[in-house]
Amino acid sequence: MTAIRSTQAAIVLHPSAELARFVSALQFKDIPEHVVRRCEDLFLDTMASILAGSTARAVKSMGKFGLLMGPQNGSSEDFVNRRLTSPLFAAMSNAASAHVVEQDDVHNGSVFHPAAVVFPPALAVAQAIGASGEEFITASVAGYEAGIRIGEFLGRSHYKIFHTTGTAGTVAAAVAVGRLLKLNTEQMLHAIGSAGTQAAGLWEFLRDAADSKQLHTAHAAASGLTSAYLAQDGFTGARRILEGLQGMAAGMSTDADPSKIVDRLGQRWALAETSFKFHASCRHTHPAADALQHAIRTHGLKATEISKVVTHVHQGAIDVLGPVTDPQTVHQSKFSMGTVLALIALRNSADLANFDSGLKDKAVAEFRDRVVMELDEEVDSAYPARWIGKVTVTTTDGRVVTGRVDEPKGDPGNTLSRAEIEQKALRLGTYLGASTEAEVKALIAKVWAIASEPALGRLL
Amino acid sequence: MTAIRSTQAAIVLHPSAELARFVSALQFKDIPEHVVRRCEDLFLDTMASILAGSTARAVKSMGKFGLLMGPQNGSSEDFVNRRLTSPLFAAMSNAASAHVVEQDDVHNGSVFHPAAVVFPPALAVAQAIGASGEEFITASVAGYEAGIRIGEFLGRSHYKIFHTTGTAGTVAAAVAVGRLLKLNTEQMLHAIGSAGTQAAGLWEFLRDAADSKQLHTAHAAASGLTSAYLAQDGFTGARRILEGLQGMAAGMSTDADPSKIVDRLGQRWALAETSFKFHASCRHTHPAADALQHAIRTHGLKATEISKVVTHVHQGAIDVLGPVTDPQTVHQSKFSMGTVLALIALRNSADLANFDSGLKDKAVAEFRDRVVMELDEEVDSAYPARWIGKVTVTTTDGRVVTGRVDEPKGDPGNTLSRAEIEQKALRLGTYLGASTEAEVKALIAKVWAIASEPALGRLL
Repeated sequence: MTAIRSTQAAIVLHPSAELARFVSALQFKDIPEHVVRRCEDLFLDTMASILAGSTARAVKSMGKFGLLMGPQNGSSEDFVNRRLTSPLFAAMSNAASAHVVEQDDVHNGSVFHPAAVVFPPALAVAQAIGASGEEFITASVAGYEAGIRIGEFLGRSHYKIFHTTGTAGTVAAAVAVGRLLKLNTEQMLHAIGSAGTQAAGLWEFLRDAADSKQLHTAHAAASGLTSAYLAQDGFTGARRILEGLQGMAAGMSTDADPSKIVDRLGQRWALAETSFKFHASCRHTHPAADALQHAIRTHGLKATEISKVVTHVHQGAIDVLGPVTDPQTVHQSKFSMGTVLALIALRNSADLANFDSGLKDKAVAEFRDRVVMELDEEVDSAYPARWIGKVTVTTTDGRVVTGRVDEPKGDPGNTLSRAEIEQKALRLGTYLGASTEAEVKALIAKVWAIASEPALGRLL
Repeated sequence: MTAIRSTQAAIVLHPSAELARFVSALQFKDIPEHVVRRCEDLFLDTMASILAGSTARAVKSMGKFGLLMGPQNGSSEDFVNRRLTSPLFAAMSNAASAHVVEQDDVHNGSVFHPAAVVFPPALAVAQAIGASGEEFITASVAGYEAGIRIGEFLGRSHYKIFHTTGTAGTVAAAVAVGRLLKLNTEQMLHAIGSAGTQAAGLWEFLRDAADSKQLHTAHAAASGLTSAYLAQDGFTGARRILEGLQGMAAGMSTDADPSKIVDRLGQRWALAETSFKFHASCRHTHPAADALQHAIRTHGLKATEISKVVTHVHQGAIDVLGPVTDPQTVHQSKFSMGTVLALIALRNSADLANFDSGLKDKAVAEFRDRVVMELDEEVDSAYPARWIGKVTVTTTDGRVVTGRVDEPKGDPGNTLSRAEIEQKALRLGTYLGASTEAEVKALIAKVWAIASEPALGRLL
């Protein structure tokens, strides 16, 4: 039992209420230092993703919508329009931008991208109310802890149809903003209720390479933020929106496990389990990409020597990547297992620039068609707790070799150093001229010092 | 085949695309005059509901959120704050307000309240862009036709967990706004895709009498409006968000029928099938209320003579009203079958004022406990196409009598006259001093003349 829980241990709460109590009571001093440091790492990584995405067409559309509907002033930075506005529109722009280059973090067990839905609303509100760096970090940790557990709770059946980052993300955003607004337990429960009843996001868009992923994060950030502000004003929500008979799991999952909602709150820090993305593609491609790299290095293979790659994957990879057989856009190509492995084999890098130039590259397209996915029992049973990568490579001269990784690059056991995070931030922050190297360097310095900031101001 | 469809009859489209083509091509001249007149009726009825709801606590919270996040000026009327703002915040305020007094319209077959999610965003955008009355009506009709068919498509399994007004409503709002923005078929399909992937709304809140119903309509209006503006700017959505393998029905229904999406487009006018609400309660209570009134009148009963009322209902009534056994708020009491029948028996009226004074009335509470719901095969099979009301009343002296209605008051076959609509508008518009009688009368005159308005301006 944690200190927070044991003080009221006599009261037995249902899972949503227990979660609300934990996140509303969470204090900076309760958070272990390595979690605080990892939170800073993840925040910088997210800022870099926001900058890298800020020139994308779909993200610009979201920014324009904010210009049309929002106020012309405020204290919250909208990094897409590079202006100050109200928290709602800053959160929407930045959340849309955070996810588009597919370089933001992911939590394996929940298959959930917390950064894109937690940091944008938390930052926008922290800037609006002048919250301290400690408060911002506490709120962000609360958002991660809630969102990841809700993603785990909703389970694999949910993820087959629903984009967990959109659904669980709405609640995560509400929790982060609610903590900044210092909601009490009762208000926080209402914020969670209002967020859960707005939770949305369907995978159908993948088939058409549509822009919905950016909409899902913007929607989660906006709806979550709205829920927290409404709760602060007394607006009420369902008390059991997660586990109730007509709640999220009832409507959108067949394998939900309510015990996950409160799994070791205060003891287990799910934020620290979150992985950085090294390749600029859908996370489902990363284990196979690293396994192929392993096979290539181990056996000294050249791309031209490879006649076939079988990737042994979990069902979720097939569900998400399966529909993408002939990618038409750069964004869609990040969901093409064949394209990702082609870039690894041909260029030894699946970074942003290689995806841009790879889309029309005939060699990439040819290699892509040599890649197949097969459901693998070992990989599928380990998933989503562990994302094992396994490939079987057949060479043009008939050899059959294998490659394997047990933790893809960026996972907690194979994480990025601060130097690697800074390098990635510089690469992403200056992508397509989104910002200057000097701006990114100043941003890096501000983020590493954020915990001691008395009141959050502008970052750029 | 309609004129619109036959010109391109050679092209076979999937249901979402056929719907997009119909609503984007719909012209004022295509709409039969009786549908135009009914649309005006429904719009006045909605404006009255918006005014009546504008002083409610939860609605005020939504209004305050708009003041905090939105611009201080614009061309769209926010009737909650009584100010002009951008279309997004006007739509959110007014949509939240439209549904709170439970007097807005309902379409039986889809169990969907079109008014609350179609008119607020359509009006807000029409005012912002200076659309004509004809354009406003055309857009509203498009929203009704789309939303009702999507509600029917999603089916009864959807409605068991999801508030169809929130889910189908998001798409209906997108269609109405999309038509005002003159989206072409392709853009409209994207708007529908973006709206469908944001569709949300769970019934869980009913158990707690929470404010979520107001959030659902505001969310639908806001997300739908956002989707249409984004589509105008080139933002893309899934092409089969309704019927696709990872679309709305896949995630949120087990009995969806895609043929409903395009059911007799251009021939059948679903808007004209929409019912006005006469009692100020959840529509599921109306058939029984009218049936009880019928029994009381036929047999000359007094409330004190009634020892038991069995209402013979459809499963949907049990799902929605069943959890409400001891209503704690006026709003929740509108979902209490017992409370509604008590008001009918004791006061011969379940209007807004009677709900307000009835909550703490001991006689109402006592009568409430004499009412039970029982699933009835005839009523359940006819539903949702027909909402039959049947009650069996047992008197204190042991008599057993029955009451029955085949079309509750307000249904298309038992509709309100313009005089009755005006009376209802005056009653609602002046409820709790929301507006003056003079304001409502001026509003009535404007609505009856709206079709000839060259550019929509302020209504109040």
